[in-house]
Amino acid sequence: MRLRLSPRNESFFDLLTTTASQLVTGADLLGQVVEADPVRRPELAAALRDAEHAADESTHAFLRKLNTTFVTPFDRDDLYALASGLDDCMDHMEEAADLIVLYRIGALPELVRDQVEVLRQCAALTADAMPRLRSMKDLPEYWVEINRLENEADRLYRRLIADLFHNGTDAVEIMKLKEVVTALEDAADAFEGLANHVETVALKES
Amino acid sequence: MRLRLSPRNESFFDLLTTTASQLVTGADLLGQVVEADPVRRPELAAALRDAEHAADESTHAFLRKLNTTFVTPFDRDDLYALASGLDDCMDHMEEAADLIVLYRIGALPELVRDQVEVLRQCAALTADAMPRLRSMKDLPEYWVEINRLENEADRLYRRLIADLFHNGTDAVEIMKLKEVVTALEDAADAFEGLANHVETVALKES
Amino acid sequence: MRLRLSPRNESFFDLLTTTASQLVTGADLLGQVVEADPVRRPELAAALRDAEHAADESTHAFLRKLNTTFVTPFDRDDLYALASGLDDCMDHMEEAADLIVLYRIGALPELVRDQVEVLRQCAALTADAMPRLRSMKDLPEYWVEINRLENEADRLYRRLIADLFHNGTDAVEIMKLKEVVTALEDAADAFEGLANHVETVALKES
Repeated sequence: MRLRLSPRNESFFDLLTTTASQLVTGADLLGQVVEADPVRRPELAAALRDAEHAADESTHAFLRKLNTTFVTPFDRDDLYALASGLDDCMDHMEEAADLIVLYRIGALPELVRDQVEVLRQCAALTADAMPRLRSMKDLPEYWVEINRLENEADRLYRRLIADLFHNGTDAVEIMKLKEVVTALEDAADAFEGLANHVETVALKES
Repeated sequence: MRLRLSPRNESFFDLLTTTASQLVTGADLLGQVVEADPVRRPELAAALRDAEHAADESTHAFLRKLNTTFVTPFDRDDLYALASGLDDCMDHMEEAADLIVLYRIGALPELVRDQVEVLRQCAALTADAMPRLRSMKDLPEYWVEINRLENEADRLYRRLIADLFHNGTDAVEIMKLKEVVTALEDAADAFEGLANHVETVALKES
Repeated sequence: MRLRLSPRNESFFDLLTTTASQLVTGADLLGQVVEADPVRRPELAAALRDAEHAADESTHAFLRKLNTTFVTPFDRDDLYALASGLDDCMDHMEEAADLIVLYRIGALPELVRDQVEVLRQCAALTADAMPRLRSMKDLPEYWVEINRLENEADRLYRRLIADLFHNGTDAVEIMKLKEVVTALEDAADAFEGLANHVETVALKES
């Protein structure tokens, strides 16, 4: 029998994995909001809001555990940063769906679908990577791919903004769409920020 | 006589309480800016700026104390977060008043008064709660009520933004008002962020 | 021969100094973007992007060193904050140049040149100050002067925004210019934030 002097509390990883799986649900619902007929969007955005609340619950459970656990699997600050990084991803996706409904936006530019597709891939990769934090194995492929996707998101964002300002005629429409497109870009940035933090943790632990 | 092995430096609480009482002054002046005739607004906004500078002074005194004190009443990072949380509340209120003057805004939508009323209540509750950090007693009623007020602020904000975009005709006017309304919403969020941090501290200390 | 029990790893200062010198290059290129004929701007903005990448490289080298060094010249969090403060300055300058190109802006208001001139002075002062972190000598003159420059930047920003809203006629043009002017103001704020952090470190170490 092998004794562990510094027992690692495994269930931090379970909670991060649960939150990350809600990002997959969120990104999927966000895709449905974008594709849907405007009259169906409010109920889809409400479902995304529910997914965000569920993610908040697991984040709170994680933080309660963090505040009451003496020995943590790695640095307390890093665990906090991972949880709040996941939270940021969800918040920006929820914000984008919410703005689409609040501003009663009609048809969205085609490239917005590509933005959401990038977010869906980011969410799937993130949900896959979280359980691997336990063993710290096979993580580089995750952060390398997220960085590649964020670069793609960045190109899409810049093309969308340029199109908006050059082809748009109604200033109010431009303002509304710009906010939606920016919330989607912020979500992609949040996925990258999280992946960068995972890289930092992996470096420290190696 | 009772000896304290780990003496608590009380005056951190005094400084937080001083800063919080300046938020009450600030919220009151913000209400006056909103109600006032446009020609009187610059002097009222200047008075609010003075209140913000006074709050900055007490925050700086707090941070100096924090940087030079060895044993703090609770975690250094938490004390820092509380001070900077109070600072955020004031900054956003000051920003809102400042934008009203800078953009030479005339009449404000009725719901903006409701936003400011929520902020006044948040400031009063926060000023009441700060001295209770010493004993950690009766704090849950504070953060529960702040969370309720922030939800109300959120509903007001969303109605204001929707009204602005659907009824507004002049894009430049919409841009100006949207920034004011957003600064007020950011202030409400800052009060909630502070209350959440107080909750975290209370949990750790319990 | 004098033995050092707690050897200070000098090269943290070298890396900060290298990053800061890239800010001088960046501010200079930003000035060229502003002055240039619109057709020449894309290549100048690309050169600024190269300077930003070079600064990113030295920041990454700094963070790798920070994560793998046991004894650091001062608090780990402070070193992290200094590196990310330098990074923020560069990011906002790069963002401003980028927006000028992306939005295909023509002539810029005269006061934008004054904003950039302030940033050039901030960059030069910062690059001068970084090597002095080693000895902690003659730093107050740096942060006092940066604070003075930031106040000047703030006045310029407010005049530009007021002019934009009062004299501007085209809402879309106003939106574009406002973002450029705000990115420049954010850069000035970032220089001030960094100087404030240097002040905090100096206070702790004194």
